[in-house]
Amino acid sequence: MGEGFGPWTIGDGVDEQLMPLVSSANIATGFHAGDPNIMRKMVLLARDNGVGIGAHPGFRDLVGFGRRHINAPADELVNDMVYQLGALREFARLAGMNLQHIKPHGALYMHAARDEALSVALVTALQIIEPKLYLFCMEASVTYRVARELGQPVVREFYADREYDMSGSIVFTRRVGALDPDTVARKVVRACEEGMVRTVDGQDLAIDFDSVCIHSDTPGALALVRATRSLLAEKNIRVAGIAELALT
Amino acid sequence: MGEGFGPWTIGDGVDEQLMPLVSSANIATGFHAGDPNIMRKMVLLARDNGVGIGAHPGFRDLVGFGRRHINAPADELVNDMVYQLGALREFARLAGMNLQHIKPHGALYMHAARDEALSVALVTALQIIEPKLYLFCMEASVTYRVARELGQPVVREFYADREYDMSGSIVFTRRVGALDPDTVARKVVRACEEGMVRTVDGQDLAIDFDSVCIHSDTPGALALVRATRSLLAEKNIRVAGIAELALT
Amino acid sequence: MGEGFGPWTIGDGVDEQLMPLVSSANIATGFHAGDPNIMRKMVLLARDNGVGIGAHPGFRDLVGFGRRHINAPADELVNDMVYQLGALREFARLAGMNLQHIKPHGALYMHAARDEALSVALVTALQIIEPKLYLFCMEASVTYRVARELGQPVVREFYADREYDMSGSIVFTRRVGALDPDTVARKVVRACEEGMVRTVDGQDLAIDFDSVCIHSDTPGALALVRATRSLLAEKNIRVAGIAELALT
Amino acid sequence: MGEGFGPWTIGDGVDEQLMPLVSSANIATGFHAGDPNIMRKMVLLARDNGVGIGAHPGFRDLVGFGRRHINAPADELVNDMVYQLGALREFARLAGMNLQHIKPHGALYMHAARDEALSVALVTALQIIEPKLYLFCMEASVTYRVARELGQPVVREFYADREYDMSGSIVFTRRVGALDPDTVARKVVRACEEGMVRTVDGQDLAIDFDSVCIHSDTPGALALVRATRSLLAEKNIRVAGIAELALT
Repeated sequence: MGEGFGPWTIGDGVDEQLMPLVSSANIATGFHAGDPNIMRKMVLLARDNGVGIGAHPGFRDLVGFGRRHINAPADELVNDMVYQLGALREFARLAGMNLQHIKPHGALYMHAARDEALSVALVTALQIIEPKLYLFCMEASVTYRVARELGQPVVREFYADREYDMSGSIVFTRRVGALDPDTVARKVVRACEEGMVRTVDGQDLAIDFDSVCIHSDTPGALALVRATRSLLAEKNIRVAGIAELALT
Repeated sequence: MGEGFGPWTIGDGVDEQLMPLVSSANIATGFHAGDPNIMRKMVLLARDNGVGIGAHPGFRDLVGFGRRHINAPADELVNDMVYQLGALREFARLAGMNLQHIKPHGALYMHAARDEALSVALVTALQIIEPKLYLFCMEASVTYRVARELGQPVVREFYADREYDMSGSIVFTRRVGALDPDTVARKVVRACEEGMVRTVDGQDLAIDFDSVCIHSDTPGALALVRATRSLLAEKNIRVAGIAELALT
Repeated sequence: MGEGFGPWTIGDGVDEQLMPLVSSANIATGFHAGDPNIMRKMVLLARDNGVGIGAHPGFRDLVGFGRRHINAPADELVNDMVYQLGALREFARLAGMNLQHIKPHGALYMHAARDEALSVALVTALQIIEPKLYLFCMEASVTYRVARELGQPVVREFYADREYDMSGSIVFTRRVGALDPDTVARKVVRACEEGMVRTVDGQDLAIDFDSVCIHSDTPGALALVRATRSLLAEKNIRVAGIAELALT
Repeated sequence: MGEGFGPWTIGDGVDEQLMPLVSSANIATGFHAGDPNIMRKMVLLARDNGVGIGAHPGFRDLVGFGRRHINAPADELVNDMVYQLGALREFARLAGMNLQHIKPHGALYMHAARDEALSVALVTALQIIEPKLYLFCMEASVTYRVARELGQPVVREFYADREYDMSGSIVFTRRVGALDPDTVARKVVRACEEGMVRTVDGQDLAIDFDSVCIHSDTPGALALVRATRSLLAEKNIRVAGIAELALT
């Protein structure tokens, strides 16, 4: 959420319509997108909709929207994330809220998913800063393993609007085209009911997760979320907030 | 302190030598200067020297070093300051420290000093975020009056390396030349002992203050601080941390 | 045109539909909006539509979209404009085109319109760099007078989507709401036929101009341009390129 | 040269002393370092010292000083370079000069040295923009080969203040420590006289080159350049400008 900058909004500019439809929101924190005015607005919007908020720190790369890998040492990248985490936390504080989670964005998320040094440095910092802060990640990632080992609570994500490969990782892309809402909704429901997802190779993969992610900048995001919520409701699958979940 | 960016340092690059000589440090928070790596380093340096730290948020203007006024609404500027305050607070948290104060930087400080709307918006936000956080300002400023009225604790500054006008305000400048250490030291001691400062008009002005400010980017800053500390010691004037002061 | 940045587009994102409908395009050059990828695309789009291109340099302020005045010396602002002008010229060169004009953007345009020092410094630089480059400005501006005095060719603009005050200047605003296409079209035709515009005070003002400006980021810009071109055609008022005009 | 930004200078801040001692200067063009004010100053300084100037475009990464690789498509990186090249060319134009060369900076230079797609895209653009513009590169690079194949004139560089590996490439590093001036001078003279350089492996490598590069941000750069010029003079090795060389 809030992945605009100054005069610009992302995707269809539907954050206000999306917020009532989600239980957790990743709020862009200024390095890949987001600015202080947008962050404040998003925090208030989340609060008014009872949505849990998380920091969504990215690479310092507005022009590349945080989707270009930047070759930097783990400790410098963690400093970038600490900076952004604190910035969002202060807006939460101003709104009388606490942060629920942190989720690195885009290429930084994918880098952490593969990189032991970055995941260790990030989780080590979180253990000092806030050992109860949820870290969102893929189960098939170094980040997940490291967080479990070091004791940081994790939320495993399922990506409704991204393709999976057989490793259980999503296939990272700089630009995503429009998707069919029904297909996305059925993919989510199948993952919930059967614990299975069809990969880019056309094979089925077992998948386990706690949260479903849909990107606000995916074209047609609002329709995707609406179709998904609708089909989940129809199948009597309830969406719960993170606080409700019995997570490790 | 920490008014570099990436590969660049400010002034003489003497933050490490300066830190043991001060009781409070304003740490640049990234908009006019400072980056996450520098901020982390400065916070640790302050901690190891027992120095109280404050956020030093500026206009979003690296190229102008926050010394160019930008015409923006008060609420947007406060959002910029909240963002930067939180960023520094998170590094303090990581270092096991609390923030002691906030002090807007450069042109933003001067703007708040004159502007009722900005001072009110800033102090109102601080009252929610942290009503005990010290706000550094000039006694001759709107900021001071507003903070007193709204109950935010203030620390009145005396500027050792800036000129005063007869209003009690400093004369703002984009670039400061080298100053004579003895002159600066005597100016501080006189202000402490007599409560007087000579203005640019050559007249004496009564001045009252709690803290003495010397800019780390003033050429020869280290010599200025050393000469000042030395003359203060010679005159048996003790420098105390903010926590020690019985401030309103 | 091209007032996006990285992943973001401005307004309705209709540059491709707008380009065939205009004779001259101001292309954002990176400081308030625009990036190298967008600039290249815009230059090619203009070339393929036979549109004259001009550099549209703004304040260095992406988050403020160049609509916030920044207090800087004239020579520094001219350096900013020279930088941006050259950047666009190189893309023109790569596309086998020449630049037709320059037009400062937003708050920088308004500042030049009022400020003798900036207008003189800008025109003096243009006289060295390219004395035949058209400078777009309002007739009621210091920029116009200075350009005429120093011999730089000017194109006087009429603003279809902005309000006028009795001085003949437009009323500057950070955000513009949606406008009625018919009203805008009639305003332009009246200005062409009668040389008159109704000001914010409700009075008529005589106005003389060479070019009609519609902002691509005004909500509904495409409808405004279409309605205007349509009514101009209906009234047999031909839109000519700058090269065709017999300008001083 | 000119690798500062806003209030910051690089290394020892000795551009003014260095300029009379070199025949060609790479001027930073704003993405990794450099701003319009500095660029203008550097161009005038070069002109007044009869020094040939070249654009020194880098990755868009001020905080990383262009020394961190950013994963971006070749065409986007070429757009970044075209933008920066044009910006510098306009300052040259304002100073009545022509550009002599282009040399990508830091991690971008090293990326082009290895990457066929980027070297081809860059040289292809240069062939359109200015087929006589010299391209500075290492002989042991893809850039050199591609430029030769496509007909762009090249200047092969020898790095006085960097280590070589056995491939003939320099060993890229984010930070360089202080070097001994005599050692550097002898390394350059040996390369001139014997065509040999000692690599990091302690082996000798044959090396051929047209230009000697010393970085202005290497600590003690001025002493390095002085020692080198002095020893070259002593050995009767003349430093000529690029224009004098009979290059392909």
